This record gives sequence, structure tokens and C-alpha cells, in this order.
Amino acid sequence: MPFMSDNAAPVHPAVWSAMQAADGPQPPYDGDSFSAALDDAFSALFARPCAAMWVASGTAANCLALAAMVRPYEAVLCHELAHIERDECGAPGFFTHGAKLILAGGDHAKMTPETARARLARVGVGVEHTPVTALSITQASEAGCVYTPGEVAAMGAFAREKGLRFHMDGARFANAVAYLGCSPAAASCEGGVEALSFGFVKNGGMGAEALVFFAPDMIEVTRFNRKRAGHLQSKGRYLAAQILAMLKGDLWLDNARHANAAAGEIAAAAAGRLIHPVEANEVFVALSAAERAALREAGFAFYDWDETAARFVTAWNSDEGEVMALAKALRGL
Amino acid sequence: MPFMSDNAAPVHPAVWSAMQAADGPQPPYDGDSFSAALDDAFSALFARPCAAMWVASGTAANCLALAAMVRPYEAVLCHELAHIERDECGAPGFFTHGAKLILAGGDHAKMTPETARARLARVGVGVEHTPVTALSITQASEAGCVYTPGEVAAMGAFAREKGLRFHMDGARFANAVAYLGCSPAAASCEGGVEALSFGFVKNGGMGAEALVFFAPDMIEVTRFNRKRAGHLQSKGRYLAAQILAMLKGDLWLDNARHANAAAGEIAAAAAGRLIHPVEANEVFVALSAAERAALREAGFAFYDWDETAARFVTAWNSDEGEVMALAKALRGL
Amino acid sequence: MPFMSDNAAPVHPAVWSAMQAADGPQPPYDGDSFSAALDDAFSALFARPCAAMWVASGTAANCLALAAMVRPYEAVLCHELAHIERDECGAPGFFTHGAKLILAGGDHAKMTPETARARLARVGVGVEHTPVTALSITQASEAGCVYTPGEVAAMGAFAREKGLRFHMDGARFANAVAYLGCSPAAASCEGGVEALSFGFVKNGGMGAEALVFFAPDMIEVTRFNRKRAGHLQSKGRYLAAQILAMLKGDLWLDNARHANAAAGEIAAAAAGRLIHPVEANEVFVALSAAERAALREAGFAFYDWDETAARFVTAWNSDEGEVMALAKALRGL
Amino acid sequence: MPFMSDNAAPVHPAVWSAMQAADGPQPPYDGDSFSAALDDAFSALFARPCAAMWVASGTAANCLALAAMVRPYEAVLCHELAHIERDECGAPGFFTHGAKLILAGGDHAKMTPETARARLARVGVGVEHTPVTALSITQASEAGCVYTPGEVAAMGAFAREKGLRFHMDGARFANAVAYLGCSPAAASCEGGVEALSFGFVKNGGMGAEALVFFAPDMIEVTRFNRKRAGHLQSKGRYLAAQILAMLKGDLWLDNARHANAAAGEIAAAAAGRLIHPVEANEVFVALSAAERAALREAGFAFYDWDETAARFVTAWNSDEGEVMALAKALRGL
Repeated sequence: MPFMSDNAAPVHPAVWSAMQAADGPQPPYDGDSFSAALDDAFSALFARPCAAMWVASGTAANCLALAAMVRPYEAVLCHELAHIERDECGAPGFFTHGAKLILAGGDHAKMTPETARARLARVGVGVEHTPVTALSITQASEAGCVYTPGEVAAMGAFAREKGLRFHMDGARFANAVAYLGCSPAAASCEGGVEALSFGFVKNGGMGAEALVFFAPDMIEVTRFNRKRAGHLQSKGRYLAAQILAMLKGDLWLDNARHANAAAGEIAAAAAGRLIHPVEANEVFVALSAAERAALREAGFAFYDWDETAARFVTAWNSDEGEVMALAKALRGL
Repeated sequence: MPFMSDNAAPVHPAVWSAMQAADGPQPPYDGDSFSAALDDAFSALFARPCAAMWVASGTAANCLALAAMVRPYEAVLCHELAHIERDECGAPGFFTHGAKLILAGGDHAKMTPETARARLARVGVGVEHTPVTALSITQASEAGCVYTPGEVAAMGAFAREKGLRFHMDGARFANAVAYLGCSPAAASCEGGVEALSFGFVKNGGMGAEALVFFAPDMIEVTRFNRKRAGHLQSKGRYLAAQILAMLKGDLWLDNARHANAAAGEIAAAAAGRLIHPVEANEVFVALSAAERAALREAGFAFYDWDETAARFVTAWNSDEGEVMALAKALRGL
Repeated sequence: MPFMSDNAAPVHPAVWSAMQAADGPQPPYDGDSFSAALDDAFSALFARPCAAMWVASGTAANCLALAAMVRPYEAVLCHELAHIERDECGAPGFFTHGAKLILAGGDHAKMTPETARARLARVGVGVEHTPVTALSITQASEAGCVYTPGEVAAMGAFAREKGLRFHMDGARFANAVAYLGCSPAAASCEGGVEALSFGFVKNGGMGAEALVFFAPDMIEVTRFNRKRAGHLQSKGRYLAAQILAMLKGDLWLDNARHANAAAGEIAAAAAGRLIHPVEANEVFVALSAAERAALREAGFAFYDWDETAARFVTAWNSDEGEVMALAKALRGL
Repeated sequence: MPFMSDNAAPVHPAVWSAMQAADGPQPPYDGDSFSAALDDAFSALFARPCAAMWVASGTAANCLALAAMVRPYEAVLCHELAHIERDECGAPGFFTHGAKLILAGGDHAKMTPETARARLARVGVGVEHTPVTALSITQASEAGCVYTPGEVAAMGAFAREKGLRFHMDGARFANAVAYLGCSPAAASCEGGVEALSFGFVKNGGMGAEALVFFAPDMIEVTRFNRKRAGHLQSKGRYLAAQILAMLKGDLWLDNARHANAAAGEIAAAAAGRLIHPVEANEVFVALSAAERAALREAGFAFYDWDETAARFVTAWNSDEGEVMALAKALRGL
């Protein structure tokens, strides 16, 4: 029973259908009608002018966004547990040509204006120091926690105060919005976010994430950077079609709600053992080695988070029976 | 009637089927069973140990190969019309961190040992010059022409003599092999090629090319470089499945033969006007502006190559009726 | 008798004196009073607001200038014989993070608006091509020839027309101005040059070149880039002092006039054999292998330029007797 | 009275003399006899085969060393207070093309095998993580403290165990050796150090540091990297002469002993207020804002280290009277 990762889930049927409907001849790269529809689709969703493009991975989306925000001698402020710091093999350094990541703390993998301010205060001024000129937060965070609209706005106010561009890694943005019950804009651009890596692959897509610029002129540089990074696929229409299918009828929200609900059931079963509040589709549970072994023996697949905890991830297709089985097993420990 | 580019063609039905057959849960990235099968599949095809990986674009395949071959202060020798020089927005410079491309000439976009040697002789020795340590040729060339096994081997001998690693950009490798009627190994690794960008997207695939290392240890560095470039997609099984489908029953060759045959019909109709021999699926035809306008008026879509010529490209799905219509129109000029 | 290169000549006594006069305690990096005087010194020399900094080499000056002009995915137009293309081990690619050099021709290593325009016309438009956004010319050229004020202005007009930033590699700028007899501004910024690598090392300095920005805001980025490249020396006052000594009383011009005059004598002696007009301090002479051997036998040191020619370079300290001896030897061949 | 930094001190007379003695004509770059003597000079000093080169700054020395040790997707383990992390504007990221610095703690800015091991344990395995393949320590540390031969060897054993290349930033290596009273080899290569940035500028030099490779083959790559970074100065003989003068008769040790002794006198006067043991030429003293103001009022120049402390640095030329005056003033607080 699969609780390893949402990125192992299959592709949603509506996405398959949309891809096959894009199979007619079209101009290559992103000259097709599907790619051309992205700007309008996201502008409608966020109720403001957006410029959007498809890319094949969250790493590419994050790093193209950062490359549009910082010069090589500058730095990005992010949480010490951020995906860009820990899980991308130094990709931000590659795309930005060596810009540094400056790491701040914060509970549940979320920065606060206070932790950000404290870290920034330790960065010197002058040419021997890399100026911090961008801020990146993750929505939902690496601990499965969510920035409320107020928290996003507080980070945005901090960014404006310090003159920082503001990026949001939204690999699980759908889960965050589903949890918050607010508009996607309230969870991002209304709080000052200028570029959003909007994830779809973990949420029922195949191989297309959206990089959405709320500061639309940032996309010009990124068009070249995407090509230069080998990310301008010639049959881009199949990527655009995936994204449009996810947006249609709010499939992205429905899928995320399903995953969140499943995570909620697991969380309820592990109430006393939760390491982080469960606000999206990840559940971090304190479990001894013996307990983890017992769960695996019983057929549950999941990652060890460290020596004392496990991570369970639900997905758009999590099976109700399997979720209840896991909940029951956790209660029985 | 579409003769713009083979990269605008749709996806072959067998590829669709294979992708959908990969839809069950599998480990992410390239930990799935399809990705794991690539090494064996290419080792069988080339009758020698190969290490292979999927990537989303030919640019990524080419540049990851070059990044495994040269240091940042070194250089790659290639034809002045090579795709890596002219059509990738400086991607080789990005992936190699600034290595130079040193440009040689040669008829029909093909280097010869003589043109390569002459260019290399003009590169100085010493730390003020970038040492040339790799060679890259395109099979079929940007002019739609093919290196025979003997020509590949002659370039390979030159590479060995000069201590150069040897890369082949095979965006249309299938068309080249279909034309030559030889084994894929004879058109590449038997002549000394150490890394091949084996194209499938132009030949019926969707978004997966193979990077095949005949010097298998080169893949270790490339696993990190691929992740670092944002090219390690989490649902890689859908890319692997495309490639396996193309290899199965030599679909890649059947598709290329169809495209080559269509190009042959067009070439026969434009015999006196051909700028390059037609050996793959591209036909370069001397045409006045008025003639091009007339063809477009008649419903044919194609690129102007320069002010005096047009390029017609056929694909795995070129329609026999449309091909004959174009042939007739060209004869009628 | 040394005619290998002007960069092998010793340091001028006035430079030594100025360096020793800077020996008192001063703030490090470029916080000292000598470094602080550079802006005013160059602003006076060029009769316009300049921002200037010292760097240790011409390569560093050139590449820091280019790094301030182009993004990594863009390109610089330069002559195919330019020092930045042929003699800097790919340093422009390092400092610019992979920007391309696009090469134009032109007699005597000088571009013209015509050769530049013709080359630019072959660069495609769109994200698959690296946009050319800067122009770099060498004053005096690698063939020892000089752009007149009119020629500089013509290149500047071309740059403005095409939206290109305009850099001048002035490793031998002093020799060019000495030849032209014009103001240094007329030979550079009045023609549109925005950044000048003003060479002093070949002309009597020790290890300090000036990077002069006529577009002063370009220096802000470069302050960081210089530090980041390890070129912000802690005892910068000794570099600044060298430059100020060279400017004082137009020592830079006197030294260049001496070198040019010596080159003129050699040129007169080799009149029928000159490969390029002699307008600075380099003399390119057609000489057979036997003739070159004879000259070396007679004690003259110089570089072979290719199999049929030699290069003789004079310097600020060229000895009149040695110059006359070379002239006599050349006449006697 | 100057206690800001040793890098503001003047140049030692013996260095001046040696530079002027190098003033005859010599081949450019590092083809001269002085540069050629460096390998032997350092091989004698360290009693083993060394390959050495001059560079203009400690940042360049450090970063060229690291660039020879790690690939762009790898990482260097260093102390969180290391100069390469905090004071070089991201230069390591520039020279290594984006390699990461992974930061460990440790008292007095010194890592221990324990702090290094603990940090390394938190680095994941797999292509999403940057493999740590090099270790860099600072001798003396940024807190003015020294690694004993045993401590260096313990770090070296750790490096070997983990397969890490081992670099030492020796901007104040002379002060460390003077303190230890051991051989320079015992303080570096005998403990496993493979590349040493051997500082001279802070210790009486002008603009030349030595990069010494105890793994001599590492210098080949670095010859190209130095040129590519604009650090191959044409009149390199003046840099080599500085270094040779510092080595002659152990001037480097005499100068460091003088500075250390001066620091010792200041330390004795501030005994109860010392933040770090004083083992080299830096004294970190807890001082209130009022106390710092009083000292400045009395004519002493120094840096605030943070809101509660000041840093006093002595140099090869620290004046005994000024040192005693500072000691007296500190005692009188």
C-alpha cells in the first residue's frame, strides 16, 4: 500500500484525455494553441495579469524563477529545510551561476519575518558579501505545513521592506489552497509573491509544472533560460494540455482535497505521535524502528524521515480502503 | 499540408499505448522498471555494453553528453552549422560552464578529417588557448546528409589520434540508419562514437530522447548533471516507456523509413533544384520567392532556408497523398 | 635584443617611485586615497564623468567589462582575431557564464560596420539563438592597426542602431592615441565606447590596468564581480599608484610615442615586407624560415607569427641602438 | 594607531628590493626565472615535491584550489565562519561553477572531526544531494586560533576516511607556524593537506600569495583556470620575487613572530576579556560601546566584531610603542 510519495502516483484520466486531444499537428516548442492559452488561464485563476510557461520538473521551475531574480553574486534567503537547498543537487547554483542560498530557521519548515530578519541581520554589507536579493518560501512547506494568507503577506511585507524578489515553491500549492479554503491568489500573489512554481505532477499530472510570473516581465529572460537549459520541449503542446486539464473545473483542487482528506484520516489515527501539524498531504509520525518494521511487514510502504519518525504521503488517487487500513494499523500500535 | 518540421508531428499510437501501460504505481525518478530496462535494451541494439538514460529534449541530451566530455576551459570541435552551435541558445556553454565550440567547415554540414584537422591546426597550444578535447558530429547532418560507417570511422580515427572524446548528435539518427541500411552500431559506436544523443521525439515519440553512452562510466557524472539541470523527472517511467516502445519491433526504423521514402519522392520531383543530397527526411530546394509563395498559396507549409531556398521535412506520419501533391506541385513549377 | 613582446619590458622608474610613495598605511582593498582618485583622474583625461577601477590584467579588465554588458544567454560580436576570442583561454565564457562570442572578419584585425552587419545578419531571431547585445573592438588591433575617431564613431553608430553595448579592448590604447594624435576621448568614448580596458602593463606599468566606464553605473555590478573573481587585491593602493603615475604628465603617451617611433624605424626598414600597416608598436614582417633563423642567429628575439612571417614588438624602453641594429639587419636580408 | 587589519600594512623593505632586482627583461607570464624557482623553493621548505604558483589574492588562491578539487555538482565542507563562506562574495561558487559549501561548527572557528562528522551525517546520498568531496580548514582560523599538528592530522584522517580532498586556507599560515614552533610541513601537508593557500600579503608582501600543491598533479588544471580567471599576470616575475624574498632567510617567520608577539602583549592586557585564545595576530576583546568609543577617542583604529566586542590585528610592522599604548589603554578600562 503506497504511501511513499505523491510523485509515484499515476496520471489522472482527464489529463490523459487532454493530452490525446492535443495530438493533431501544431507548431513546435510553445508555438501551439495550448501553450498560448496558459497566460489567460492563469490570469483568470489568479484574477490578475500572469505570464506562465510549462516546464518538466519542479526543480526546473524553481531554478528558472530564481535565475530571473538574482545575479550570480547575489543570494536567496530560504528555509534551511527548503527543497532548493536540500533536494535539488545544487540546481539553484547551476541555474543562477553560483548565487548562494542563505538559510533561516523556523518551526515546521516555515520561515517567519522574525527568523528571516534575524538571518538577514548576520549578512554583512559590502562587496565581500553576497547581497540577499530574493526570498523563497515553500507552500506547503517541507513539513507539510501551510502559510496562511496572513503569513504569506507578512513575508511579502518583509521582502518589500528589504528589497527582495519573492518566489514561492508550490510543488504542493494545490494541497495548501485546498487546506486554506481561500483563493489561490490569497495564498500567493496577494501576499506579494512574484513567481510561483505551481506543481501538477504530484497531483495527477504526468510531466508538466507551471512557472507563473505575477511580475509578467520576468518571463522574457526566462524564455531564453528555459531554452538554454534544454527545457523547451519541441512537443510542448502535450505539457500545456496537462496543465489546462488540471485547471479545468478545478480538478487540481479536487485532487488535492482528496489527498488532504486521506492525510487527515491518517493524522487522526496518529494524533499523539504527530511531529508537525497535518495541513496538506504529508503526515510525519514518531515511530520506533520496531513499529516501522511492523507496518512494513503489514504491507505499508513509506519513507523513514529520520531514526525516530516516518513520513506518509497521500495522493490524488489514495485508496480509501488502504488509507483506513493504515489508520487502523497506526491506532493499533 | 505540413512540411515544416518532423517535431510537429503527433505521437505514434504504439507510443501512446506503452505510456498508458506504464500507468501503475512505480518508484519515482528513474527507479522504475521501465527506466531500469534501458541499459539492456540499448546494449542489445548496439551489441555492446551501453548505459542509457532518458531526457526530455535533444538539447539536454547533447549538452549533458558534452558536459561529461570537456572541462569548462576546454573546447568542442563541431561543424559551423551544428545544432549545438546555432540552435540551442548557447546551451552547451551553460551545461559545460563556458567551454567553447570551435567551428570547422565541410560540405553538406558534414565535417571530414581534413576540415577538422585544418581547423584544429589553427588552435594554439598553451594556457591562453582552450584545448580541444571533444568532437561532435550530427547524424544525419543539418543538411539532411548522412555519414557512412566509413566516414564515421574516419572521424573516430581522427578523434583517437588527437585525443578527443567523440559525441554524435543523433536527433535524426533513425533516418540516417534507415538510409544506410547498416546496423545502428555501424553508424555510430563501431566508428568510435562514445556518446550518442538518440532522437525519438521527431520520429513518433512525445518527449523522450535517449542519451546512450558507449563508454558507460560517463553516465555517473551525468546522473548528477541531469538532476542538477532539472531534467530528472519524477514520473520518468512515462519517458522510458516511450523509448522502449520505439525500440520494440524496430518501430524507430519503420517510422524513419516512411519519412525517408516521402522525402525521396519530393526529392525526385525537385531533382534539378536540390541543394544537398537527400539522404534522410529533409529536402532543401532552390526556390524563388515567387515559387515559394505559389506553393504556400497551394496549401503547403514549410520553412524558408534562406532567400533562395526552402526546406521540406517529412515525418513518420507523412501522408502519401500530401507528399504526392507536393511532388506534383514542385514538378509543375 | 628583445622584440618578443612589450609585456616583457621592465617597470618605468616613475611607476616605481609612485608605488613606493604609496607605502604608508592606508585602508585595504580600494578604500585608499589613491584608488579613490581614479574616477577624477580619468574623468579629467576623458573630459566626462568616468568610473574607473584597477585590475591586475587585461583579461580581467576585458571580461569584467563584458560581464557587465551581456547576460549568460547573450553574445558579444568581435573580430575573429580578437584577444578575447583567441588568447584568453575562454575567460569571457567564464566571467559571463557562457555568453558566446560571435566572430566577424575585417582587414588588419579591424571590424567595419559592413563586416559587423554581415555577421549579425546571419544570427537568427528567437529563443534558440543567443541575442547579440554587445560589441567589442580592439584599439590598437591585434594586427597593430588603429581605428580612427571616424571609424570608432562608425562602429558606435552601428552599435546604437543594433542596441549593442560597446566595449573597447585598449591593451595598446596608448599606442593608438599616440599614433592618432587625437584626444583619448576621440579615440574611444566620443565614438560611443561605454567601457574601455585601458592598458598600462605593456606600456611601463607593473601589474595594473584600468577598467574605465564611460557609462558609470556599470561599475556597481563590476565591484561585486571583481571581488568574486579574486581581483580585489587588499593592497590596492599599489595598483592605483601605478595608474596615477602613468597618467601624470602624460607619461602613458610619452612611453607609447617612444615605442611607436621605434616600430616606425623597423617598419621603414622592412617596407616591402609589411603584412599590416604599422600604426602602433607591432611590426609584422614577411620572412622566410631562413631569414628568421639568420636574425635569431644575430641576436634578435621575436615571435614567429605563422610559417611565413614574424612579429616584432617595441616597448617604452626600446633601445635606440638595438632598434637600429634590427632595422639594419632587415635591410640587409 | 592602526589595528584594523594586517592587510593595510606596508610592504617589507626586503620585498621591495627583490622586486626591483627582478626588473630586467624576462619572458612574460610565468616563464621567467623567478616563477620557475617557486617549485624548488616550496619543495625545500616543505621537504617534499611541491608545485606552486603565484596569484594576486587569497580569494583567488582559495578558489583555484577548490576548483581543482570539486566538480560543479559537489560540495566543500568548511566552518560556518570560514572566509570562503563569509567574506569572498561567493567566489567559490564562481570558480567551481556552483559547488556548494556545507557548513560545520566548532569552537574558535575550528572544525573538529566530530563537528565535521556530524555535519556530514546530515548530507543525504543520491543524485538529489551534492556529494561532499573536499574539506577546507583555515590555519590560523578566523578567530585567530591555530590547528596543532595533531589537529591537522586528525582532520586529514577524517578526510581520507570520507574520501575528501583537503585544502588549507593559510592567509595567516605564517602566524600559525610561528605560534606552533613546528615545521611548516607539520602544520599542513604532514597532516594530509593537499593544497595550501600560503598567504604573504598580510605578512609584508604586496600582491602575491602562493598556491602550493602537495598533490603536484593538481596544478595542471589550475594553470588553465588561473589564465581563464584573468590571474595570469604578464609580469609575473614581480609576484614571484615577492614570494622568494619572503621565504629567504625565513623572513615570513620573522615577520609573523613580530606580529604574534605584539598580539600577545595586547592579549595580556585584556586577559579577562578575551573571546578567543590568542594564538596568532588577532585579538578579540569584549568591549562595551562606550569602551570602544573611548579607545577610538584615544586614537586607536580597529574593527567592531559585533555589538559586544572588537578585533585588534597586529602586523609585521606593528610599532612597539603603539602596541604598549594600546595595552595600557586596555588595562585602564
